[in-house]
Amino acid sequence: MSERIRAYAAESAGGSLRAFEYDPGPLGAEELEITIEHCGMCHSDLSMLDNDWRNTRYPFVPGHEAVGRVTALGDATHGISLGDRVGLGWYSRTCGHCRQCIAGRQNHCENAEQTIVGRHGGYAERVRCHWSCAYPLPKNLDAASAGPLFCGGITVFGPMFELGVRPTDRVGVVGIGGLGHLALQFARAFGCEVTAFTSSAAKHEEARGLGAHRVVATHDADAMKALQRQFDFILVTSNVPLDWNGYLGLLAPRGRLHVVGAVLEPMAISAFSLIGNARSLSGSPVGSHGAVARMLEFCARHEIKPQCERFPMSKANDALDRLRSGKARYRIILDSDFAAKPA
Amino acid sequence: MSERIRAYAAESAGGSLRAFEYDPGPLGAEELEITIEHCGMCHSDLSMLDNDWRNTRYPFVPGHEAVGRVTALGDATHGISLGDRVGLGWYSRTCGHCRQCIAGRQNHCENAEQTIVGRHGGYAERVRCHWSCAYPLPKNLDAASAGPLFCGGITVFGPMFELGVRPTDRVGVVGIGGLGHLALQFARAFGCEVTAFTSSAAKHEEARGLGAHRVVATHDADAMKALQRQFDFILVTSNVPLDWNGYLGLLAPRGRLHVVGAVLEPMAISAFSLIGNARSLSGSPVGSHGAVARMLEFCARHEIKPQCERFPMSKANDALDRLRSGKARYRIILDSDFAAKPA
Repeated sequence: MSERIRAYAAESAGGSLRAFEYDPGPLGAEELEITIEHCGMCHSDLSMLDNDWRNTRYPFVPGHEAVGRVTALGDATHGISLGDRVGLGWYSRTCGHCRQCIAGRQNHCENAEQTIVGRHGGYAERVRCHWSCAYPLPKNLDAASAGPLFCGGITVFGPMFELGVRPTDRVGVVGIGGLGHLALQFARAFGCEVTAFTSSAAKHEEARGLGAHRVVATHDADAMKALQRQFDFILVTSNVPLDWNGYLGLLAPRGRLHVVGAVLEPMAISAFSLIGNARSLSGSPVGSHGAVARMLEFCARHEIKPQCERFPMSKANDALDRLRSGKARYRIILDSDFAAKPA
Repeated sequence: MSERIRAYAAESAGGSLRAFEYDPGPLGAEELEITIEHCGMCHSDLSMLDNDWRNTRYPFVPGHEAVGRVTALGDATHGISLGDRVGLGWYSRTCGHCRQCIAGRQNHCENAEQTIVGRHGGYAERVRCHWSCAYPLPKNLDAASAGPLFCGGITVFGPMFELGVRPTDRVGVVGIGGLGHLALQFARAFGCEVTAFTSSAAKHEEARGLGAHRVVATHDADAMKALQRQFDFILVTSNVPLDWNGYLGLLAPRGRLHVVGAVLEPMAISAFSLIGNARSLSGSPVGSHGAVARMLEFCARHEIKPQCERFPMSKANDALDRLRSGKARYRIILDSDFAAKPA
């Protein structure tokens, strides 16, 4: 039996979300279906809705930070039971057999399917995915605010975990928004010395509240200069052009500048910024399945959670406007209200 | 007693080398003096001679790949005896007490003295250095060809050692010259799959002889394209602008493009080249004291040696011309003939 799924979809690039239904077809043997309780809003939803990356298929149902209960299970799923509460992120299927998957690097799977690329996502009543991409939530993790961990959270936790950020490191976080406000919490809980870099004076106190030992105004040239050769790891969460060689100069020998914000303009890097002090520049997408599982445990243990503004899913257009405004503190979550609506 | 030291010096930027003598003053307690047998010629000698980096002091005595016998020892030196055969590289003194030195990262010493910056180098009868910068040569290492290891060799061995290149890695070496011909030998002896990238058809066979399993002509777009997502580590030893994003595309997920050639033009890096497959771009100078010691052991065990053209030191100008021609295969060494000359 495949019941039609109610959702919110845009019909064209930049369009508003409208009520939409689709037939998901028969449930695959390795698939499961999640009845969504909450779904985070991510800037990637907006980029896809606007067809910024030229790969959106319309009608387009956004949503790739979904949390809910498993309400249908295929015959060949593993480790998950009906009724389990799970999260779904950017990937809805990884193949399990390519060179990357077998090495535990499913985030680089050569055959991956992405939750909102060519298929319908989580601004919906229900959503499907391969069993391996549904992550069981630890019991003591706050499910209502967990959604953003599955894309925003793992995007910043992933490199810290996989590149081996250490408790003794001096860590900088550039840009205090949806990603940065989580990165500050992670870095503090890692035991690091934490510095927030922000262009917004209004965020200084908030950044301290999120774990920063120090907050630096990025336009304060003297303050920036005083920090040269200090940092082991600087995570750039903004997606605007920066003085890249300037930030490289803030790194200690063998330090790393890591970008997760997809800035469109080429970065003009001086080889000397890298060579003299053996510095690295790198980037990453979301994390591996193993990294996500560790992140969830870590969040539960350290009571790390996204700070969110909430909207009922039926008000998704209002939420989108808020997201476009860039003023949300710091992430937006849609709470499903389909149950209250007649089918 | 401080006897005057005979040497070859340039009087001005780009000038020829002329016979020159200087008084080294009293030997410092932590210093030793090496009577030079051989000294490699490095492109950095040329850059300094030409004042390319605006920090050359004239008269200028080049030479920072010196090998010889210890013929004088200060009172506070350690681990070295008179008569030991040692090598001297880019650094003539590291402080031993800064944050970097105590962590074994003497190549990032905050107070380092460089052999040919503001002092006289190894195109000379004798040269001095801090005891910690004189590396004893393993007995079974060929001393006559060891000089270039102390700058060219450690520049390519250093990152392979310190960044943890593994025997199972697929390694690329871009540019088969003074540095690249050593990198090929190291990578092969590391147990890696080794690919040489060269724009010179004449070097294909030589690259195979040096250890490359495969040689790729860099102008062959099809061959380059076929190698996408293949490499764990690509070492760029040339110092000309490359298609940086193209080379990043040759890296497997989590791969690293590492530059040791100081290209002057900014590298226009796309953030997407880094993010999607979690790639890194990095650089490094010469290696730590520990890395040099391991390199010497490794070279002795694997019979790795620079391929060199030899000139008597009294013909240093001919050697310089040869170096400027870019045709040397692959490194040049000056053999001291001061002993045959009346003082």
